[in-house]
Amino acid sequence: MSAASGELVGAIEAGGTKFVCAIGRRVGAELLVREQFATGDDPERVMTEVVLWFVEQQRRLGRLAAVGVASFGPLDLQEGSGTWGCITTTPKPGWQWADLAGPLLRGIPGVRLALDTDVNGAALGEQRWGAARGLEDFVYVTVGTGIGGGGMARGQLLHGLMHPEMGHMLLPGVLGDSFPGVCPFHGRCWEGLCSGPAIARRAGCEAEELSADHEAWSVTIRCMAQAMMNLTCVLSPRRIVLGGSVRKAGRLGESEFFRRLRLETGELLAGYIGALSLRAGGLEEYLVPPQLGDDAGVCGALALGQDVLL
Amino acid sequence: MSAASGELVGAIEAGGTKFVCAIGRRVGAELLVREQFATGDDPERVMTEVVLWFVEQQRRLGRLAAVGVASFGPLDLQEGSGTWGCITTTPKPGWQWADLAGPLLRGIPGVRLALDTDVNGAALGEQRWGAARGLEDFVYVTVGTGIGGGGMARGQLLHGLMHPEMGHMLLPGVLGDSFPGVCPFHGRCWEGLCSGPAIARRAGCEAEELSADHEAWSVTIRCMAQAMMNLTCVLSPRRIVLGGSVRKAGRLGESEFFRRLRLETGELLAGYIGALSLRAGGLEEYLVPPQLGDDAGVCGALALGQDVLL
Repeated sequence: MSAASGELVGAIEAGGTKFVCAIGRRVGAELLVREQFATGDDPERVMTEVVLWFVEQQRRLGRLAAVGVASFGPLDLQEGSGTWGCITTTPKPGWQWADLAGPLLRGIPGVRLALDTDVNGAALGEQRWGAARGLEDFVYVTVGTGIGGGGMARGQLLHGLMHPEMGHMLLPGVLGDSFPGVCPFHGRCWEGLCSGPAIARRAGCEAEELSADHEAWSVTIRCMAQAMMNLTCVLSPRRIVLGGSVRKAGRLGESEFFRRLRLETGELLAGYIGALSLRAGGLEEYLVPPQLGDDAGVCGALALGQDVLL
Repeated sequence: MSAASGELVGAIEAGGTKFVCAIGRRVGAELLVREQFATGDDPERVMTEVVLWFVEQQRRLGRLAAVGVASFGPLDLQEGSGTWGCITTTPKPGWQWADLAGPLLRGIPGVRLALDTDVNGAALGEQRWGAARGLEDFVYVTVGTGIGGGGMARGQLLHGLMHPEMGHMLLPGVLGDSFPGVCPFHGRCWEGLCSGPAIARRAGCEAEELSADHEAWSVTIRCMAQAMMNLTCVLSPRRIVLGGSVRKAGRLGESEFFRRLRLETGELLAGYIGALSLRAGGLEEYLVPPQLGDDAGVCGALALGQDVLL
């Protein structure tokens, strides 16, 4: 349990349901301690709990050199912005313009802070220790309660004007399908068509309860394949890592979900991306589940914290 | 016309109709000489003409330190590939697996070669001297005979597995529109719906001849706005530079085309990308025409050649 002072790195996975906090080292995915706190609707309360926990761990284990935070969003990541490190326009009650960075910087003096989206954190974790090892151009997508995407282009996490909001791209959908979608902003965007709540609304029951041959799976997989095609065309990734709960696909099963998704994505691409048709393994190695499982979030946060020390 | 030996950089814009060749300097967009050759259907012939022209110019002006090539594609840009520097699966007669790099490297001994897509070249040129000056995250799209896109993420040109093929992303299109699209691979992809040939097929005449209130403009602009939204969601660019002939929009006019495209893109985004809604200028500064005009291609090639010397 001991580690040289300054060799410790904190990690916070800030999710809509819980904040998972952990401490690891400057190198490696091992977590020395971990704890979690309910997110609730009072950001000040949970941030106080988080800071107190880290301060207590510092007393036991030694000084933290950095803390990495991988958070739900949207986030203000704009250097020099007056609200840098805040969650911005989230619909989550109580969390609009909640300050994540301030309490940590004030409560853990001298610590270096790295902050990014949950999906960019997960992408970095999968690149370091999981399904995207060694890749400099890839996408990580999570399809669950919502849909989000992050990833890297030429070894750099994607940011830009804000950060990608891949879940809100528009898709053709399936001809004759009149489902209006569940996204309050865009109706039938990807999240509106394929998120867990979309499947539940479409089918009238939770995805886990659907029979394997339920039509909702066919429609969902077809729309998902359209999204995979669009990510392929726009970003030219070397791999798409698809996480989140929907791909577990209840009674249909994860491997059948991926088999059909790869097949339909290949059909849509129609051989246009020669590099995909030609390479050994084809879509088997292109469209894959994550490898870090339930630790993806907190490991990603740890990786963010490690990188701020490079 | 004189320049120190080693300070000269060649540029080749390799297009489907013509190859534009020029010579500039290590810094700046000025072109000292330029010449063009018909692309035709015989790659060996045109590459021989190109090489002989550069050899002749070297005799007059001095040694070329580098040559930048911005080419139509798809291209093999994979380091270590046996077909690096070749055009790959193009439908253009005679040009499948045509070698661009080999003849240049053999014909101009010692020259350093930079090769990228025409759209990445144009993106780099616009970033250095045009509409994307100073930006590290942006997209350059050309909508003309085909649709292609390039750009930068965190200051690096987008590559990945191959290179982006943005023109082939799938879009919802407009409800009730039964136009099958013109893409031989994907039917109603972006290129299938919005390219110059798509507008001509839809309207039964060339885009330039359409009346300003022709329905084909409404449908095209609506589909284009969907593409702008998808680029925004997937890449989070700071700006989208939209080049190519379609945006000139014949009798509708370029400024009206951009006005309506910005309006409809804003409506589709529905305020979700706060950073766009909030900033001064809004979509006026976000969605813009290129500034380099007809020289974008060859200036982009020059910029590629300059960068290989950094």
